[in-house]
Amino acid sequence: MKDWVTEIYAPMGNIWGLQTKEKLHSEKTDFQMIEMYDTTHFGKVMLIDGCMQLTTYDNFLYHEMMTHPVLFTHPNPQDVVVIGGGDCGTLQQVLLHPAIKTAKQIEIDQRVTDLAKIYFPELCTSNNDPRAELIFGDGIAWMQNQPESTLDVIIVDSTDPVGPAEGLFNHAFYKSCLKALRPDGLLVQQSESPLFHLELMRSMRQAMEEAGFKQTHTLLFPQPCYPSGWWSCTIAGKQGNLTQFREKDAEKRAFDTRYYSADIHRSALANPPFMKK
Amino acid sequence: MKDWVTEIYAPMGNIWGLQTKEKLHSEKTDFQMIEMYDTTHFGKVMLIDGCMQLTTYDNFLYHEMMTHPVLFTHPNPQDVVVIGGGDCGTLQQVLLHPAIKTAKQIEIDQRVTDLAKIYFPELCTSNNDPRAELIFGDGIAWMQNQPESTLDVIIVDSTDPVGPAEGLFNHAFYKSCLKALRPDGLLVQQSESPLFHLELMRSMRQAMEEAGFKQTHTLLFPQPCYPSGWWSCTIAGKQGNLTQFREKDAEKRAFDTRYYSADIHRSALANPPFMKK
Repeated sequence: MKDWVTEIYAPMGNIWGLQTKEKLHSEKTDFQMIEMYDTTHFGKVMLIDGCMQLTTYDNFLYHEMMTHPVLFTHPNPQDVVVIGGGDCGTLQQVLLHPAIKTAKQIEIDQRVTDLAKIYFPELCTSNNDPRAELIFGDGIAWMQNQPESTLDVIIVDSTDPVGPAEGLFNHAFYKSCLKALRPDGLLVQQSESPLFHLELMRSMRQAMEEAGFKQTHTLLFPQPCYPSGWWSCTIAGKQGNLTQFREKDAEKRAFDTRYYSADIHRSALANPPFMKK
Repeated sequence: MKDWVTEIYAPMGNIWGLQTKEKLHSEKTDFQMIEMYDTTHFGKVMLIDGCMQLTTYDNFLYHEMMTHPVLFTHPNPQDVVVIGGGDCGTLQQVLLHPAIKTAKQIEIDQRVTDLAKIYFPELCTSNNDPRAELIFGDGIAWMQNQPESTLDVIIVDSTDPVGPAEGLFNHAFYKSCLKALRPDGLLVQQSESPLFHLELMRSMRQAMEEAGFKQTHTLLFPQPCYPSGWWSCTIAGKQGNLTQFREKDAEKRAFDTRYYSADIHRSALANPPFMKK
């Protein structure tokens, strides 16, 4: 199809696509294939290995929901790590929280960040924040080498659990996260579509709990450019109740959000009957 | 594209589609073009004038959210009318509520229901319920001719606001609904995508309020087969608070749902900051 960039999600026999104005870039890096298009209505879109990662138009949904719920669930998050997140949109949302002291981003593929700076400059405005550190390397190895009990929140903002991201969805990785987290530490990870990937979600939560996390909870949100248009993140906690959060702080937050609010946070915690089964 | 049925949503430059096994039916009725396909993963799909109306796989989201929130918001719904809803899935959900005495479905195009009986028989299992009445005719005219104060809930389950459904989205229609409703009566209408159709949503709510409804509230839910994958319904009330509902009754409902629950109802009431603006 000319003038369309499409993604076929074969396991569920569906296709989603955006009308394009032009192809901006295409590159095979050491890790993956990256493509960039300008679309008619969704702004820029980045694809990795043929899968849409983000668009200018709708990335706020994902980035806000990968960050603010976990950060308002933690009592006092100061030291945060983003694994993946090369487009820098997650890092940017993290740094909106004034209590944050350090925010490190460990992206395996520097080219993702190089291209984000060109095509999604609005997401990279906090890259030079003195609290931010951009590290390019393997997040799995990096996490294994972390000193014990030094992090408050780990955000796993990765591609799907195939290719370079596969090792981010297993027991060994969760074990090293658990070790690096302080006693009230939280891990959050994108956990795919509640409609299409229930089995993955179940096995992720099981692996997190087997690694030693006390509780897990999955939050739901819309995300049009991902398969089914409905997405999730799963929070895992070393202790504490993941359905409670600093509601007052969330309500009177000193920064603007387009999707996140205390109400939306409470809402995202609800899981429908078909998921509970 | 061979072996795919696709819908282009031109105003936002996007496409969504399903892989097909075969085309089952195609027919130009007096009102519209109806097509039916068997898909690889979503079961059957019905298109009207090229727009996907429902699939076997994901219609539960829409049908449950068009019915249970409004029915648990009303204090005691007994007489219910569905305008449109020819696939009978909405009627079926309505009749799960034991207090219902009459449920009338006013569908303009009998062929939609004829085909639903063949291709979505699982949605038509309540068509012969003694409380149900299937009427084929113009919902706008039907509503104008209703005696005053005889209905508890009106559910407008229509196609998009173009073609035969256009007259269901305006002041005159809302006026006749208001007249037909009892003092605690509620109207609910599908109100398109929160991401793509905010202006339509705003003008619907304005027209409802100008027609004399005291309050309106929009509820959000996922719906993969509709543009953006994120959809809404708007409730309008002659009186009362639309954010309160019979939570206890919803929690201990005597029927199974796959998406709806009291928690999901509360969640659907939350509107994100970008909508409130």
